[in-house]
Amino acid sequence: MTLSPKPKGKAAIGSIVERMQTLVSEDLTAVETLLAQRAASPVAIIPDLSGYIVSAGGKRLRPLITLIAAHAVGKANPATHALAAAVEFIHTATLLHDDVVDESDLRRGKPAAKAIWGNKASILVGDFLFARAFNLLVEANSLDILNRLATASTIIAEGEVRQLAAMQAGDLPTEDYLAIVEAKTGALFEAAAETGAMSAGGDKYANALATYGKNLGLAFQIIDDVLDYGGTTSVIGKSVGDDFRECKITLPVIIAKRRGSDEDREFWDKAMKPETQEESDLAHAVHLIRATGAAEATVQEAEAYAGLAKSALRTLPETPYREALVDLADFCVSRAY
Amino acid sequence: MTLSPKPKGKAAIGSIVERMQTLVSEDLTAVETLLAQRAASPVAIIPDLSGYIVSAGGKRLRPLITLIAAHAVGKANPATHALAAAVEFIHTATLLHDDVVDESDLRRGKPAAKAIWGNKASILVGDFLFARAFNLLVEANSLDILNRLATASTIIAEGEVRQLAAMQAGDLPTEDYLAIVEAKTGALFEAAAETGAMSAGGDKYANALATYGKNLGLAFQIIDDVLDYGGTTSVIGKSVGDDFRECKITLPVIIAKRRGSDEDREFWDKAMKPETQEESDLAHAVHLIRATGAAEATVQEAEAYAGLAKSALRTLPETPYREALVDLADFCVSRAY
Repeated sequence: MTLSPKPKGKAAIGSIVERMQTLVSEDLTAVETLLAQRAASPVAIIPDLSGYIVSAGGKRLRPLITLIAAHAVGKANPATHALAAAVEFIHTATLLHDDVVDESDLRRGKPAAKAIWGNKASILVGDFLFARAFNLLVEANSLDILNRLATASTIIAEGEVRQLAAMQAGDLPTEDYLAIVEAKTGALFEAAAETGAMSAGGDKYANALATYGKNLGLAFQIIDDVLDYGGTTSVIGKSVGDDFRECKITLPVIIAKRRGSDEDREFWDKAMKPETQEESDLAHAVHLIRATGAAEATVQEAEAYAGLAKSALRTLPETPYREALVDLADFCVSRAY
Repeated sequence: MTLSPKPKGKAAIGSIVERMQTLVSEDLTAVETLLAQRAASPVAIIPDLSGYIVSAGGKRLRPLITLIAAHAVGKANPATHALAAAVEFIHTATLLHDDVVDESDLRRGKPAAKAIWGNKASILVGDFLFARAFNLLVEANSLDILNRLATASTIIAEGEVRQLAAMQAGDLPTEDYLAIVEAKTGALFEAAAETGAMSAGGDKYANALATYGKNLGLAFQIIDDVLDYGGTTSVIGKSVGDDFRECKITLPVIIAKRRGSDEDREFWDKAMKPETQEESDLAHAVHLIRATGAAEATVQEAEAYAGLAKSALRTLPETPYREALVDLADFCVSRAY
């Protein structure tokens, strides 16, 4: 199995996603049509709000995984398109509810939907999109596929509740952090890849793609968590510090705390509590995460998961689609540089 | 078709529900087992919170409809049980999210789950139960049934968003009120009855039972809305005034406003705005709803829908189950007396 060279830098990253989008461009067009059609409602707030978040510059990472997984083991078809759109709707519903739960008015530097339409509309439109996802899944015409997505959805909610409990506890062992990430992000990536294969008649590769998806999701989320502290090189930008402000304990913090001095640990204990956190703490938190090498160590953890993801693809036929899945794993990690 | 005599008073009401529960007691036991099993999770908040609301003295009205509809046209079976449990979970998820959206700390005089566990947990556990409902629906083993419940869920969310928009508008035409009630409550009653029949092989009665369920839901919700002002006879008790305090415009208010004097209309315009509502306004609202005959007129509207529900049962075979569905329609209305 040939591995494509590891991409570096923003330009390379952009080109990987574009290449993936080009590879399945016809399928992606079908998915976009479904996303627009199925968010329709006579109640204007629904298409307005969901349009804001569904079309807000999303990379369509999860639908891309579904489509490419299908092509990697068979051929994407109308069932795959419905499935890919359902996966995106489930993701969108989760984002809407997350923003309410997180009490953050910004999502990656942009106003969250709830900051424009309010918490109530965000909750209810999330429910609407989640229900519509299951209408779409009916069109994928397989109770097995539908069951996988329903289970993934329960696991996501379970992970969110577990995270909530952890935030109240104020401390988080690494294993619990990883369990939360696997549930919150891994479960949908896993189901997206696995059911993509199932929808294309590639059942014998479904397990391999499930393993790929789960580990890809872990890598993706861990990188997201280090990006929230500026990654390994960036300066503090407008999309930095969301997790910190919400006192969400993530891997960079866990590692920086473990590696730090007693004084550092006191800082983290104080800074990761809403009552005692101060505005200026973010800069010091970013400093400690760099100084202790926690940022690099976090990226290495993500790289390990990306490696597991790529290994899982070994049994798949050698096609440009398998290659794209490998590139995607590299892409997830390369975002940190 | 013989109609059973119209029950009056609390004792008669209790005995109707008990009779229905006895009629399908074995099925109901199976449903209760599923409800307890499927709310299970290693994350303790989930069974705690869902247990509080699922087992909080619910009459299991919607599962009862599903079970009795199945027996009325065939035989309830494990698929029916899974379906009935799914219907209850969808209802529970809706209640949890409703309580967050309504900003009320009480539900029928008891602390709402969100008052104990918080908004965030209520949103996420609602999502969990909603996803679990679709796992259960997979066990009902029919994409048609599943599609009906997914569609009902989108309609419920749509109705809630429409209600939200109406509350911001401060006024509500009767047709819009009825459209909201049909969406919020009618859709799930409709799907519960219709899919109950489908699960028992009674597809040829599915339309009749859908009509029954929709009209029963309308009757039920309209009565709920007049009960929120003490019904036609009661005094103001602890479970009165929830809708009023939330400035939710319902049929008793619409009728009282239409029938009232200019002065009355000024009162309603002032009282149904959060900024200008005063504590003492509730007593005057209840007075006006009685004095204008709006309470009686609202009950008559509900009776008309209950009549339509009963008429829809005409084509069904004459069985104790059909009789129970007739009784249920009477029960819904009799709650107001």
